[in-house]
Amino acid sequence: MAGTEQPDLEPDLEPDLEADLELLAPLTDFDAFRENGYALIDWIADYLTSLGQRPVCEPVEPGEVRAQLPVAAPQLPEPFSSVLADLDDVIVPGLAHWQHPGWFAYFPAMTSPASMLAELASAGLGVQGMIWSSSPAVTELENHVLDWLVDLMGLPEAWKTTSRGGGLLTSGASASTLIAMINGREKCRKRTGAPVEQMVVYASSQAHSSVEKGARLAGFGHVRLIDVDDEFALRPQSLAEAVSQDLVGGLSPAAAVSALGTTGTTAVDPVRGVGEVAARWGMWHHVDAAYAGSAMVCEEFRHHLAGVELVDSYTFNPHKWFATNLDCSVLWVADRVPLIDAMSIDPPYLRNEATDSGRVIDYRNWDLSLGRPFRALKLWFVIRALGAEGLRATIRRHTQWARDLSARIDGHLCLRRIAPTPFALVSFVHTAGDAATRALATAVNDTGRYFVTVSEIEGRPYIRVAIGATLTARHHVDSFWQFINESAVTLRPPEK
Amino acid sequence: MAGTEQPDLEPDLEPDLEADLELLAPLTDFDAFRENGYALIDWIADYLTSLGQRPVCEPVEPGEVRAQLPVAAPQLPEPFSSVLADLDDVIVPGLAHWQHPGWFAYFPAMTSPASMLAELASAGLGVQGMIWSSSPAVTELENHVLDWLVDLMGLPEAWKTTSRGGGLLTSGASASTLIAMINGREKCRKRTGAPVEQMVVYASSQAHSSVEKGARLAGFGHVRLIDVDDEFALRPQSLAEAVSQDLVGGLSPAAAVSALGTTGTTAVDPVRGVGEVAARWGMWHHVDAAYAGSAMVCEEFRHHLAGVELVDSYTFNPHKWFATNLDCSVLWVADRVPLIDAMSIDPPYLRNEATDSGRVIDYRNWDLSLGRPFRALKLWFVIRALGAEGLRATIRRHTQWARDLSARIDGHLCLRRIAPTPFALVSFVHTAGDAATRALATAVNDTGRYFVTVSEIEGRPYIRVAIGATLTARHHVDSFWQFINESAVTLRPPEK
Repeated sequence: MAGTEQPDLEPDLEPDLEADLELLAPLTDFDAFRENGYALIDWIADYLTSLGQRPVCEPVEPGEVRAQLPVAAPQLPEPFSSVLADLDDVIVPGLAHWQHPGWFAYFPAMTSPASMLAELASAGLGVQGMIWSSSPAVTELENHVLDWLVDLMGLPEAWKTTSRGGGLLTSGASASTLIAMINGREKCRKRTGAPVEQMVVYASSQAHSSVEKGARLAGFGHVRLIDVDDEFALRPQSLAEAVSQDLVGGLSPAAAVSALGTTGTTAVDPVRGVGEVAARWGMWHHVDAAYAGSAMVCEEFRHHLAGVELVDSYTFNPHKWFATNLDCSVLWVADRVPLIDAMSIDPPYLRNEATDSGRVIDYRNWDLSLGRPFRALKLWFVIRALGAEGLRATIRRHTQWARDLSARIDGHLCLRRIAPTPFALVSFVHTAGDAATRALATAVNDTGRYFVTVSEIEGRPYIRVAIGATLTARHHVDSFWQFINESAVTLRPPEK
Repeated sequence: MAGTEQPDLEPDLEPDLEADLELLAPLTDFDAFRENGYALIDWIADYLTSLGQRPVCEPVEPGEVRAQLPVAAPQLPEPFSSVLADLDDVIVPGLAHWQHPGWFAYFPAMTSPASMLAELASAGLGVQGMIWSSSPAVTELENHVLDWLVDLMGLPEAWKTTSRGGGLLTSGASASTLIAMINGREKCRKRTGAPVEQMVVYASSQAHSSVEKGARLAGFGHVRLIDVDDEFALRPQSLAEAVSQDLVGGLSPAAAVSALGTTGTTAVDPVRGVGEVAARWGMWHHVDAAYAGSAMVCEEFRHHLAGVELVDSYTFNPHKWFATNLDCSVLWVADRVPLIDAMSIDPPYLRNEATDSGRVIDYRNWDLSLGRPFRALKLWFVIRALGAEGLRATIRRHTQWARDLSARIDGHLCLRRIAPTPFALVSFVHTAGDAATRALATAVNDTGRYFVTVSEIEGRPYIRVAIGATLTARHHVDSFWQFINESAVTLRPPEK
């Protein structure tokens, strides 16, 4: 009975598959896994503890890393020791080291031992949470830690999965914002029937590029970047005027985005003011708190949340300033029904009893992704390793160091801050002008000990110092200050 | 000079920050990291090697996992040993174990020790590749391993980053397909100026839900699911007719998707036939090879690629059947210029010399995401650990076992396959009808030793057996066969 030949079966493959067993040993040799795993744990500890002795950004020319890699993939297995050696010899010398204690560029990618281990645990378990039943603990832990964070951060009770809203973990603020934009589009479509080409998204001129990108990817025809005040926060009056103009012009206002901590200078848009305009015209209101959202774990920052009860969706990135390695972004919605309406379709191979009962959350119907890694482990490990008090302490010391640096800059004749320091980003220029500002940044980055970003605002360059790398201690900020304190005085702008 | 008070500075935070140092020890205690890391490596090895003794799916009721977690997050740090104990006591008993040797559900989430370690290395390095200069090796390794795979899989030379096209790594086929849909929309917009509400996407009635979802998220007004033939592959003639009808109806055909291995039965759409229709009407042609793409590492499967030179984009998921843990999806495009046109905007804080020179790839301009983890490490570790020959051996043995199982099913009086077995998925029914098919699946899953998915095709249930878990050996498939061989005969459909 078994083994009967059937005409429609394709011909047998290689007859002697067992000869391949040796080739396949690397898949199931767990003694080797233990040994290689210990070695890699040690390698990471050695990398991180010796990082301060390397340049923050290795000097690399385009193509230099690739030139060291073999043109063709290997045909036969290589030992783990070769891979580890190439990490040292090829990969590390081609990195900008985001974990370096002198990393002040972009925003921090603050991480922690707990988060790294959670990432490993997630990889080891190898489960995924597309629907509740595809591995229930994946969904329930995600529900639970995001409900924890609502409490820890003083956010609206309605955002809990146990209430009308709920949170999910995505790959980043770009994904979170894209989901928000799609929700704004669908809300407007239902209300007005307008084509998306005639819909408008509003954000401040200082909004992150992910807002414009998300709007564009969602198909919106118009993105309006609204005036900001002297502190680079959106002016609700200007927003109201822009909306009125668009309505007169026959367009359909669909979504407004408030930045809680812009990327440029961590300016905070008036969430209530934007929310009132959004509510008046039935727009979706999204808050981008990608960086500064982490600070809400401390009560003294929560005045920035005023009006947050008017918000439809809110994103913050634990992978920036909450000791959690990339990727991990939180998106909360105040009401999950429109989210699920916008994001779900239900194929037969994903139907099951639990889903049909309506007693569980199937995150595939909330998210862009179907396959979803067990990211909640990272937040769970991190929150437990540090406790809420530990997380507050990190936010507070980074902010304190940034304010101390701000005070020093304010006291320096050649330096001028261009924006307040509500969190741990300091934005400043050289008073001698753009060339001096650029030259100062170049001097800083050329040390190899610190790395800052030069950005532009209103067409003028300025230096961003973002404090928050895990390994940064106060003395790193102090020595950085000593360097700019002296360089700012002695520095000559480069010859043209 | 330093420390001068300025009126616009916010008040000092906690004065005694150093008292928090103990709280912060978990961030930088690398001795503890080593110890906890070894313990977790051992925990994972123990979990995976003992997994066969657990039920494939733990019996869990909705809410059961959450009920075991504290209502509030901890205020103070907890030791790693507590977290590890809770993994055992709370998390593991709430999982469906995708790595179990009896996991035959959905598609495999095949992983490997090399991939898990690469995930750990990526977390430990903590760098990210939004642009080349944000950590050059991240981008260059991604370029390089995806070019390797073009060669390893016999794909068009033009898809290499060194040629006109290129590959990128995304979080999954949903993200990859959404990018493809957005490209289809923009291509159609440029050509026709039609609003997206009047644009149409075409795929077979057997296409994965991510196609319909991607089209919907991209804003498309219409998705046409085209007839399939007896083997569940799209009929190009039906596609051509649907396109003609839509043109007559004033709509704008924008994109067509070929499945290379459908989720339902791994049917292969005729890529050339679809490609010719797409080319004729200027549509974007995307190939979804999420599962079966991995098999292209073996030459004997490449006849399925006929016509692939007519493709605009192509996705496959190493996290399904290429020994790489979630998440890791590849998207290739034949021409990167329209991709970059559709996906890029350039804010000032991301400008830099390397980007301006045009000599590097900035993946942020290819991807949905800005922040991008170092996923290429996973493919690099996996390809080196197994070699191309090792990867081929895994594909070949899984396919051989599936074909052996198919032959046995074909020889059984009470069982009938409903589709060919071109890869390692076997689709069959009980000849006594739908109730018997469902009862057989329930009997299988109730053993706790195996787990299969029941899906539906043309309104009728059938059993999907997807072979490909890393720990599955031939004897697991043999004992599974013994069980269904006997159960199919003795089984009585349940009373109504």
